[in-house]
Amino acid sequence: MRTTSLSSFLFTTLFVTASAPAADDDGKLRIICFGAHPDDCELQAGGVGALWSARGHHVKLVSVTNGDIGHWRDAGGPLARRRKAEAAKADEILGVTSEVLDIHDGELLPTLENRRTITRLIREWKADIVMSPRPNDYHPDHRYTGVLVQDAAYMVTVPFFCPDVPYLTHNPVFLYYPDQFEKPNPFMPDVAVSIDSVIEKKLDALDALESQFYEGGANGSAELLPSDPAKQQERHRAVRDGFAHRYQSQAQRFRAKLADFYGSDKAAGIKYAEGFEVCEYGRHPSQDELKKLFPFFGE
Amino acid sequence: MRTTSLSSFLFTTLFVTASAPAADDDGKLRIICFGAHPDDCELQAGGVGALWSARGHHVKLVSVTNGDIGHWRDAGGPLARRRKAEAAKADEILGVTSEVLDIHDGELLPTLENRRTITRLIREWKADIVMSPRPNDYHPDHRYTGVLVQDAAYMVTVPFFCPDVPYLTHNPVFLYYPDQFEKPNPFMPDVAVSIDSVIEKKLDALDALESQFYEGGANGSAELLPSDPAKQQERHRAVRDGFAHRYQSQAQRFRAKLADFYGSDKAAGIKYAEGFEVCEYGRHPSQDELKKLFPFFGE
Amino acid sequence: MRTTSLSSFLFTTLFVTASAPAADDDGKLRIICFGAHPDDCELQAGGVGALWSARGHHVKLVSVTNGDIGHWRDAGGPLARRRKAEAAKADEILGVTSEVLDIHDGELLPTLENRRTITRLIREWKADIVMSPRPNDYHPDHRYTGVLVQDAAYMVTVPFFCPDVPYLTHNPVFLYYPDQFEKPNPFMPDVAVSIDSVIEKKLDALDALESQFYEGGANGSAELLPSDPAKQQERHRAVRDGFAHRYQSQAQRFRAKLADFYGSDKAAGIKYAEGFEVCEYGRHPSQDELKKLFPFFGE
Amino acid sequence: MRTTSLSSFLFTTLFVTASAPAADDDGKLRIICFGAHPDDCELQAGGVGALWSARGHHVKLVSVTNGDIGHWRDAGGPLARRRKAEAAKADEILGVTSEVLDIHDGELLPTLENRRTITRLIREWKADIVMSPRPNDYHPDHRYTGVLVQDAAYMVTVPFFCPDVPYLTHNPVFLYYPDQFEKPNPFMPDVAVSIDSVIEKKLDALDALESQFYEGGANGSAELLPSDPAKQQERHRAVRDGFAHRYQSQAQRFRAKLADFYGSDKAAGIKYAEGFEVCEYGRHPSQDELKKLFPFFGE
Amino acid sequence: MRTTSLSSFLFTTLFVTASAPAADDDGKLRIICFGAHPDDCELQAGGVGALWSARGHHVKLVSVTNGDIGHWRDAGGPLARRRKAEAAKADEILGVTSEVLDIHDGELLPTLENRRTITRLIREWKADIVMSPRPNDYHPDHRYTGVLVQDAAYMVTVPFFCPDVPYLTHNPVFLYYPDQFEKPNPFMPDVAVSIDSVIEKKLDALDALESQFYEGGANGSAELLPSDPAKQQERHRAVRDGFAHRYQSQAQRFRAKLADFYGSDKAAGIKYAEGFEVCEYGRHPSQDELKKLFPFFGE
Amino acid sequence: MRTTSLSSFLFTTLFVTASAPAADDDGKLRIICFGAHPDDCELQAGGVGALWSARGHHVKLVSVTNGDIGHWRDAGGPLARRRKAEAAKADEILGVTSEVLDIHDGELLPTLENRRTITRLIREWKADIVMSPRPNDYHPDHRYTGVLVQDAAYMVTVPFFCPDVPYLTHNPVFLYYPDQFEKPNPFMPDVAVSIDSVIEKKLDALDALESQFYEGGANGSAELLPSDPAKQQERHRAVRDGFAHRYQSQAQRFRAKLADFYGSDKAAGIKYAEGFEVCEYGRHPSQDELKKLFPFFGE
Repeated sequence: MRTTSLSSFLFTTLFVTASAPAADDDGKLRIICFGAHPDDCELQAGGVGALWSARGHHVKLVSVTNGDIGHWRDAGGPLARRRKAEAAKADEILGVTSEVLDIHDGELLPTLENRRTITRLIREWKADIVMSPRPNDYHPDHRYTGVLVQDAAYMVTVPFFCPDVPYLTHNPVFLYYPDQFEKPNPFMPDVAVSIDSVIEKKLDALDALESQFYEGGANGSAELLPSDPAKQQERHRAVRDGFAHRYQSQAQRFRAKLADFYGSDKAAGIKYAEGFEVCEYGRHPSQDELKKLFPFFGE
Repeated sequence: MRTTSLSSFLFTTLFVTASAPAADDDGKLRIICFGAHPDDCELQAGGVGALWSARGHHVKLVSVTNGDIGHWRDAGGPLARRRKAEAAKADEILGVTSEVLDIHDGELLPTLENRRTITRLIREWKADIVMSPRPNDYHPDHRYTGVLVQDAAYMVTVPFFCPDVPYLTHNPVFLYYPDQFEKPNPFMPDVAVSIDSVIEKKLDALDALESQFYEGGANGSAELLPSDPAKQQERHRAVRDGFAHRYQSQAQRFRAKLADFYGSDKAAGIKYAEGFEVCEYGRHPSQDELKKLFPFFGE
Repeated sequence: MRTTSLSSFLFTTLFVTASAPAADDDGKLRIICFGAHPDDCELQAGGVGALWSARGHHVKLVSVTNGDIGHWRDAGGPLARRRKAEAAKADEILGVTSEVLDIHDGELLPTLENRRTITRLIREWKADIVMSPRPNDYHPDHRYTGVLVQDAAYMVTVPFFCPDVPYLTHNPVFLYYPDQFEKPNPFMPDVAVSIDSVIEKKLDALDALESQFYEGGANGSAELLPSDPAKQQERHRAVRDGFAHRYQSQAQRFRAKLADFYGSDKAAGIKYAEGFEVCEYGRHPSQDELKKLFPFFGE
Repeated sequence: MRTTSLSSFLFTTLFVTASAPAADDDGKLRIICFGAHPDDCELQAGGVGALWSARGHHVKLVSVTNGDIGHWRDAGGPLARRRKAEAAKADEILGVTSEVLDIHDGELLPTLENRRTITRLIREWKADIVMSPRPNDYHPDHRYTGVLVQDAAYMVTVPFFCPDVPYLTHNPVFLYYPDQFEKPNPFMPDVAVSIDSVIEKKLDALDALESQFYEGGANGSAELLPSDPAKQQERHRAVRDGFAHRYQSQAQRFRAKLADFYGSDKAAGIKYAEGFEVCEYGRHPSQDELKKLFPFFGE
Repeated sequence: MRTTSLSSFLFTTLFVTASAPAADDDGKLRIICFGAHPDDCELQAGGVGALWSARGHHVKLVSVTNGDIGHWRDAGGPLARRRKAEAAKADEILGVTSEVLDIHDGELLPTLENRRTITRLIREWKADIVMSPRPNDYHPDHRYTGVLVQDAAYMVTVPFFCPDVPYLTHNPVFLYYPDQFEKPNPFMPDVAVSIDSVIEKKLDALDALESQFYEGGANGSAELLPSDPAKQQERHRAVRDGFAHRYQSQAQRFRAKLADFYGSDKAAGIKYAEGFEVCEYGRHPSQDELKKLFPFFGE
Repeated sequence: MRTTSLSSFLFTTLFVTASAPAADDDGKLRIICFGAHPDDCELQAGGVGALWSARGHHVKLVSVTNGDIGHWRDAGGPLARRRKAEAAKADEILGVTSEVLDIHDGELLPTLENRRTITRLIREWKADIVMSPRPNDYHPDHRYTGVLVQDAAYMVTVPFFCPDVPYLTHNPVFLYYPDQFEKPNPFMPDVAVSIDSVIEKKLDALDALESQFYEGGANGSAELLPSDPAKQQERHRAVRDGFAHRYQSQAQRFRAKLADFYGSDKAAGIKYAEGFEVCEYGRHPSQDELKKLFPFFGE
């Protein structure tokens, strides 16, 4: 089963029919993002998701686990339901579709069942772009989400893997979210996007993920939660400022890549950014193709 | 259980008895190659396999899965049987032994059962050389074939792992096939071999893997298959030319390494090549040992 | 569940309460070391273990498998019991606590059950430091020990993963043992320690692991075992010399890092050393924090 | 977690709120039937399914595997697709909803993933009645379908098992299909139904499952398939007659139970029947409740 | 490995050394009871547990899962902790040792890891008697608890299964709890015990399992919980009365077996009872041996 | 996939072609027996195996585990090798083929990998008869051997389950060994055979399984092994007598069934016997067919 690599190296004109991003019937792009928990996609791709959505493209954020141990006080089914609702609210703010799989938080493994689930979700969304964490990250669920998406990356094109769901005739572009880890390789952005025009929307969405950021998630504590309304507002503000700062840092970190896509002048003025690295196991897009997939640069 | 690394670092003269490649009774080399599907070994090591075989050495090509989803029209047991027959035919052309394990294509996992199967195959073949894909590649079956062979790499020497099969008293050299992936590390050849003298044999063997290359395998389609005999012949020719081009590219890519083994002059004239990287988890051969294992350079 | 990385990047002062190494009630450090077999921890951290122990700190060495195929003549339960006794003896010499889990040697996999076991051991020890092999090494049990410890690295702080055992409110520092493998990255020491003052104790401890070093473990043979008492003593001496040489080589290899901690002059005189690399998935200690965790440099 | 059995034994009036069959919003019954392969439900419950459907009740037939080795010539994804289409056609004839899960035929195991899938299907259908094979039968897939449905039988009422899908507030009645096996207990019908009024519809539906009955499925052969159209028609007729005979035999076998529900006189005239045994692990219906669930007896 | 059955059939005097119940050093009996959830052991063996305990014998109740979905409102780790505390309180009332394993409720499977855990617990308790549910019951966790204890039943005597824990030199008596299921066989008591003298203690213990009985567990609802203190007391009373009635029913059901052990006259006056069936896979005790193991009949 | 049961109930003359026992090319019967450990087949079917073998029929005894914890002193690989050799010796005495699978003793589970292994062994032997323990027995390995053979019972006839091995066109007769367990059903012999003519051969074979019977296996001890040669001989005699007594008891237990096959007069004189029960999941042989499969009754 080497024909794919074969075709990409040698026979391109023979074997591959459609090389342009496969738009769905309505001519719009289709993007599916995987995160390990109901907040990961929003954190990593909430800005670009809002940008696509505002232009009529189709974006879906999938949490692969239900997040049911992601809090210092709550856990189990009640937390799973709360976080699903939080994600739904955040995703509504971003204008994107929301899905949370019912797999225990902290217990994700790269099984065949999970590989099939990921494969079907990508196919059913007829994705042009698939996003995920890298298979190296501090949380095992993040790592195994990365492994599962990698394991599905080629299989989405194989007709008789999951023959119950129509296969993709073109391979999507697979993109990684940024992280801070240096080994075995540091994250290297292949594309970076200004999210200045949607930063308030993104911060509103993150604000809706109350259990995680306002309350501190698994590493939080009761001390984070003031009872005094004025202090509560202050706490909301601190969280929001923290995130604003985070995406400013990202703009700084990805400045060179922003310049590649926006030109140096425009790039210099970008305050908030998101960036992504191309995974080698899906389609290898040219810079031109990336510009079609991220149709924001000329605006 | 550190004595192996211990011995390789410190005690070499004490603990390790035989350091020369362990030839079988007949004084010939013994090579076993693992691929994920019934075409991967032929693609990656068909040339060198034919070279060894022509000199009386013992070569076995093992497909770890049965390839039963590797087609756009056929699948399941009927395809598994067809591909097993194709591999048998190709391997007969190459003069090597053929084996196809009955594991579902697209469903290979690094289980203990599979680790034991790989370990037994290596031991039963009394291998001097073991080949496999790297554990990073675009297809999950390729990756997990790489993991499984790595997981067996030391265990083949441990007497009471699989005590039903005699263990190896020396560790084979484990070699990786080339691929195009850059992360976490690009493929770096440690040995490269001219396959000029067997290129027609290799192309004949690949031609026998009709379901994969003539028909296009999992990513093919009915459009690849002309009904007009003249066009059919043209299609055969196009596939053959594509492969000839592929191994020419490899000769180009591995030119420096060819020069290490053949000398620069001879290397410059090599048209078609295969190359391999030494896996760190088996025996670490010197260049001299490599020359004994690949006894083609002085010819 | 991004608050950890979030907090480490942005909110440090808000979310993280205790940043100093969490000493137990008695103000002493708590260290837990994981190895795949009943000899790996002793080989890699026996020196530093003896140093900590002599100063009243709490050190535990855990073998994740029972080592029951680690010999050329013996195996199974009888060998498991012998090796547990050997480790107990060696660890008594080093002054550290000994534990051997009853998992078959050669069969360790990164399951959820094993992840939970590792998580509970780290929590119950209230560890400030956790040591393990890297997830790349020649033996599959070494690699999967590394994966399991990585998979537990963040989970030890999550209250409702294993809610039956009190979670850690601070994340320990996770350290890797050295190895010789270059890919995907070579081992890079972040801290190195002179074991000159305990080298005899360490060599005594290794001498107690008779099945592995005197008898040669899985790769040994009857030829290693002289019946003549004079030759037996000679064999003991050869093993001991081999190990002394090994830790001299390590001092040489880690000389620059020794200089960072001891100053160049003192470092130049160090004969035997152990070194460790910080794993990115636990706490990222500053050099100052490392000096508190390894309180040997000013002595 | 004994309150269910507790409530059924002691506290009935306290704990259990709704004891009547829980009709959906439209006041109609809701039935879900599980079979191992795309023909098992139709064979066992096609008649009663057609009866319910004709009265506006909601019936769903689920094949737990995709049937992809159920033929002597075809297999894999192509067969899976063919059988899914056959089941869809048969179920359309019967007037019921059709679903085929994509699990390999011959490889069904009672995993947690499968237990969750069955639980969700029962809940989403808001079933009053659930049908399955007994956990003793000649085919392992039949047995494990029985085990899986048993394993889901109580869990459908537990709110935080699969908290992503609303749980059932009443436990459905679980019924077994008949089989011929005597050990550990023979099948004992608790209810039997005349299918005289729908026998032609049922035989038409079975006729649509061409791969299985006309062609003989896994135990068929090319000899079963005449090329002569007259003989083909004869073959169709023979299959149809065989099935008519089968359901006549069942009427004979279940005559006493038919008399319990229809009265002796009417029962004596029934030609074709289906029968079912109540599984002890779901709701234990009274005869009156059975008459409401099978509202055919007074007609 | 037939010597056990062999010895029981043929060689009894040769092979089996100790046939009396193996009392521990202090001459007291040692009993370990397994239930699926933190309330099952208390419900089934709370009375006899209190009887043994009052006479100085050693009783341990183990919940194999943590019960973390056993409520209509709460779930996950917080519920697991609450139920562990409830069980601890109930078991303190009964005078027995309490243990709750941290396995998810609703997800117990008969894995090797779990078999080993059960084996170790039986061995470490040096049990004379082991109790469990039958492998047929309405809840999958109950069934698989039964399977796991069966799977450990012989292995507790095999030295090199779990060689890290001393094996038992005599096989304990394994007993099943009663249930209401008729297939494949109805529960048949081999011993029945009056719990009249401890009924208040048992009802107090069950009252402490508040989440399950007062609040209704997984099948309860907010309606069960009155806010009016008078009604709360009434609710407590209703639960208590329900249980009193349950054990009265059991006395009625097991009257004949009570007569076997107490004589008909005394048996006729017994109000509350518990009963147990001997599992065929452990020691087969004579009635005399049962009288030594349940030393209550002559009192 | 109901056509098998369908055909057996309704269509027999249509679908099933060969109903006579499928003799191999040489016209001889082919029998394969599965036991859990290297002694179980010999104990249960050693006599009838010797009878068949002496008449030129083909008998294979397969131990599904390697027996590596079946001793009180030895374990692991060394014991596995010893027991394999013992079985080979015993089977040579009986004149049958010997195979021992390398699966850990005490760790057999009904996995798909094991189901496939059993299926292939039955097919490769082209078995007319398959024997196994019942799925209810005191040892978990016995039970799961029974489950695995049941799970293979129909699959041996399905062409595309294990498409790499030719399937059986007729279903073998599956037979159970006797045991003493009453629940859910007692063992009921369908055929019983006099082993008087081979009793010495059988006792010799059992004597060769020295680790199990002379030394006592897992439940033995050093006390069983006298050092005095006279007492050793006495011990051998006691074991032999014990077994002779066991098969006498079986003759007594199966007397009625012996009469069915030998006539009452001849049956009354039979001293030693073996008996077997037909498993419902394979072919259902008539008494006439049983007489052809056990061609000993008229002799």
